Amino acid sequence: MNRIITIGREFGSGGRELGKRLSDLLGFAYYDHEIVRAIAERSELAESYVDMVLENGVNAYYPITVASTFAAPIVAPVPAVNSGIYAAQTEILRELAQRSDCVIVGRCADHVLAEYHPLRIFVYASMASKLARCREREPEDSRLSDRELEKRIRAVDKARRDYYRFCTGEPWGDKANYDLCINTGGVSIKALAASLAALVQAMPNKQP
Amino acid sequence: MNRIITIGREFGSGGRELGKRLSDLLGFAYYDHEIVRAIAERSELAESYVDMVLENGVNAYYPITVASTFAAPIVAPVPAVNSGIYAAQTEILRELAQRSDCVIVGRCADHVLAEYHPLRIFVYASMASKLARCREREPEDSRLSDRELEKRIRAVDKARRDYYRFCTGEPWGDKANYDLCINTGGVSIKALAASLAALVQAMPNKQP
Repeated sequence: MNRIITIGREFGSGGRELGKRLSDLLGFAYYDHEIVRAIAERSELAESYVDMVLENGVNAYYPITVASTFAAPIVAPVPAVNSGIYAAQTEILRELAQRSDCVIVGRCADHVLAEYHPLRIFVYASMASKLARCREREPEDSRLSDRELEKRIRAVDKARRDYYRFCTGEPWGDKANYDLCINTGGVSIKALAASLAALVQAMPNKQP
Repeated sequence: MNRIITIGREFGSGGRELGKRLSDLLGFAYYDHEIVRAIAERSELAESYVDMVLENGVNAYYPITVASTFAAPIVAPVPAVNSGIYAAQTEILRELAQRSDCVIVGRCADHVLAEYHPLRIFVYASMASKLARCREREPEDSRLSDRELEKRIRAVDKARRDYYRFCTGEPWGDKANYDLCINTGGVSIKALAASLAALVQAMPNKQP
């Protein structure tokens, strides 16, 4: 059976970078937005629509803000279509898990792929640390104030929490549901990935 | 400044063994019951009394069960003496932190030594895993049923939770207060310690 690493992460905690670096170091496939693309292809829906539904749930009908203002509603909710997106995601996640060793960021993959006994990692940090990390990645022309940026971080994390609860019925980020929870405050993701790769290789394969 | 690793742990999760192995691998000093002994020497109180107060709080006046029955009360509460025990513990923890690199298990050391920027680890597991681990260590003549053993695990963890709340005002085991939370379910502590030692060495020194 392939080795699967799932990474849940708070926005701004460096979870995506950690997943990418970890997959490079271990020689595992890496999946994040690729999953949205695959669902869009399979369902013949726009990537942006698939993304919006996965971020906002089956009854989603407006896009979440990705800047400081809300965009106007673009579509009416279509629960049957939206449910199909979730079913397609489950199907694709299982296909990927069967294909090769891989790192999957987000997508409730820890829960969806439970039967594959993934190593379940959750990455988090204090708000101060997340603000600092977001600032590092921010485009130079960004005009978000600290308050706006914090509001955005909270909104994205709320969407992830709601989505996780919707998919799994469990509280998002509860350590009982993970094998390893890592606080990235004050930590170099590059250094962390290197040592974590060693730990992943040394940890007993959790698979039966 | 010395490197300090603190380990909070649920009863039966293997945290003590992990701390011991980690200190051996890293060449750090290891402190657990040694702290109780030092407090007893300094305060001229019995080790068993010091232990009981540290487990049960300043107003403690009966020993917690360590088997399946409760012992009768042995002392009346002496808040002034008991408070002195906590003060002595803080003093001793600081002395140890200044002496050398070390691993300290329990004792709210993550909070007491916050100014030393310890690497704060919390170790936990599912009840099924903790029961199995306790069974491995159980003396052959033990007659605890599964139900009694689970009750004991819950009682010890409740005492730790109350003690942590009393000392720090914070919820025990909340991942926000730790750098690394490790689920030891299905994991060999020996293998985990080896890879964790590598991670500890690779992780940036959190100290200023």
